[in-house]
Amino acid sequence: MRSEDEKFMRLALELAKRGEGWVNPNPMVGAVIVKNGEIIGVGWHRKFGEKHAEVNAIEDAKAKGHDVRGATMYVTLEPCSHWGKQPPCADRIIREGFERVVVAMEDPNPLVAGQGIEKMRKAGIEVEVGLLEEEARKLNEIFLKYITTKLPFVSIKLALTLDGFIATQTGSSQWITGEKARHRVQKLRRKHMAIMVGSGTVLADNPRLNCRLENCPEKVKVILDRSGRIADEVSNGRKFRLFEDGRVIFFTEMPEKFEGIAEAYSITEPAEILKKLGELGIDSVLIEGGRIACGFLPLADKFYLFYGPKLFGNGIKPFECLKVSDANEAPLLRIESIERLGESFLVTAYPGDRNVHGDS
Amino acid sequence: MRSEDEKFMRLALELAKRGEGWVNPNPMVGAVIVKNGEIIGVGWHRKFGEKHAEVNAIEDAKAKGHDVRGATMYVTLEPCSHWGKQPPCADRIIREGFERVVVAMEDPNPLVAGQGIEKMRKAGIEVEVGLLEEEARKLNEIFLKYITTKLPFVSIKLALTLDGFIATQTGSSQWITGEKARHRVQKLRRKHMAIMVGSGTVLADNPRLNCRLENCPEKVKVILDRSGRIADEVSNGRKFRLFEDGRVIFFTEMPEKFEGIAEAYSITEPAEILKKLGELGIDSVLIEGGRIACGFLPLADKFYLFYGPKLFGNGIKPFECLKVSDANEAPLLRIESIERLGESFLVTAYPGDRNVHGDS
Repeated sequence: MRSEDEKFMRLALELAKRGEGWVNPNPMVGAVIVKNGEIIGVGWHRKFGEKHAEVNAIEDAKAKGHDVRGATMYVTLEPCSHWGKQPPCADRIIREGFERVVVAMEDPNPLVAGQGIEKMRKAGIEVEVGLLEEEARKLNEIFLKYITTKLPFVSIKLALTLDGFIATQTGSSQWITGEKARHRVQKLRRKHMAIMVGSGTVLADNPRLNCRLENCPEKVKVILDRSGRIADEVSNGRKFRLFEDGRVIFFTEMPEKFEGIAEAYSITEPAEILKKLGELGIDSVLIEGGRIACGFLPLADKFYLFYGPKLFGNGIKPFECLKVSDANEAPLLRIESIERLGESFLVTAYPGDRNVHGDS
Repeated sequence: MRSEDEKFMRLALELAKRGEGWVNPNPMVGAVIVKNGEIIGVGWHRKFGEKHAEVNAIEDAKAKGHDVRGATMYVTLEPCSHWGKQPPCADRIIREGFERVVVAMEDPNPLVAGQGIEKMRKAGIEVEVGLLEEEARKLNEIFLKYITTKLPFVSIKLALTLDGFIATQTGSSQWITGEKARHRVQKLRRKHMAIMVGSGTVLADNPRLNCRLENCPEKVKVILDRSGRIADEVSNGRKFRLFEDGRVIFFTEMPEKFEGIAEAYSITEPAEILKKLGELGIDSVLIEGGRIACGFLPLADKFYLFYGPKLFGNGIKPFECLKVSDANEAPLLRIESIERLGESFLVTAYPGDRNVHGDS
């Protein structure tokens, strides 16, 4: 690795992030082209189905009058070697005469999986792999789960009091956290293709479940409605805001109730729900309903726990379905970070070693 | 203020902290003597009843062969003007010929309250007050509460899971947090004169309730034992480790059961318990028992909430005595800081604007 490689790769990672929410279920990818120590072109994958980062960077360089022959390309994911919605980027890089390509990580997509790298090496390009790989893997944690398992990446988001309640005994929960925390939730929505809540949340709060950040794509809304209560209400003439935009999918025991109202599947088991979402091309789901979260606990990939500076003493607990009697047998999380958000804070965590994915 | 004043006062504050746990119910005080821009003496109040910081600094300077005449003294609290266990420091500073004294904060002790400052000014010394006052006030938050109210500073310490439980349904709680968090608890014990728990904790865990840091003074152990269960057990021959060192005080409905066993008072109401502790000269109490904490919630001055990376789902909640039905009526805390401690973290908070000290 050369001394400035890391700097250019960091820029490529930053560029990649601009595609967040727009490229799913594709990965976010960024590319930087450097010649004689100078950045001559940058690009990122902007939107699902559109051009890849590498091509955007090449076109950026050319539009500025640069010749990319002999240049180095920094790219956050291995260039593709197959024809998908776009022609293979590895071929384009070879054709354009790049001398060196620095790749953060191999593409685990079985259609690529090292073949892009091999192709470029065979064509005489110097290819280095693994620079800032950890950052690149984290950036695309959703894509990595989905491409390897065909199951969506599952995030559980909760807003808790300091003593762990998501609502009072009477169901009051507005607001536990402050405005900065709620803005942070919008960013989480941007990151995930789908938002999932239970019918209770919809009936109580009539939320839009959209992403209110500027330039944020429509969300898929996934509603767990075992007995079809929302369909009943719609038939009675009630309007729900979640139908205002984006795809709406119900999982229910009563799919017939939803005919003419919305897409509905006769599935209620959490693992089966995820399988179906994966089949529908949904790579990520943010579970926002507190009470439904517990069923997905053993299947969760990430936790976003927002704490507001309040005490309820009693109320609704998020993981009531868990049965732990010995403290040492409790599901463990691995805390990734803690962010202060005004008077609230956010704990981001992954499942730990023990039992969260097990039989607790 | 001169450019280097802050630097010297910060040093004085650091020195003051060395007295933590040893000086109660006195304040922690540090002093730095500077002459021609050079530190010539430092001192701090080391132990209750012993010499004050100012005198220790003067003696330090003299022991090193310096002449303090014309020097500046930086001191974290107004020098005393009255005879207590020690002669008045203001008089000594005047007698030694100091030219300038920089004081972080006035002493709210009604026996001082500006008189030390006035005395020095009348003697022609240039006195400046208020440098790093906020830090000085925080350092001595215990002293400030006690000297002005005669009630101990009340801290509630809890170890919680991420979903807010202090134990499982079956009472299992070892361990929710990790080793670094438990070490941090020892520092909290050093800061407080007394540790308070309920009899249930003593009967279940038989804790020593001591401070296990090096060079940490003995703690007063305060046990809430309404029905005298511990006395019963002692009468039956059971040995409790908390009697191994330090003063032990019981609050109970059955003081007669404790005759010949320990100091006991026929008081069970939280506010009355605190009043009695204040009368006994105890300036601070760290409430470590989860279940007893709720009764002291409206009286608490500070919260130390340790979170371990576990989920229990169900279990024992710390503030069950609270009745909140509307989220907007909930007791509010003001989060001061969040410290990561290995796999756990500590949220330090003060009561917020609403209701914690009120009628919630």
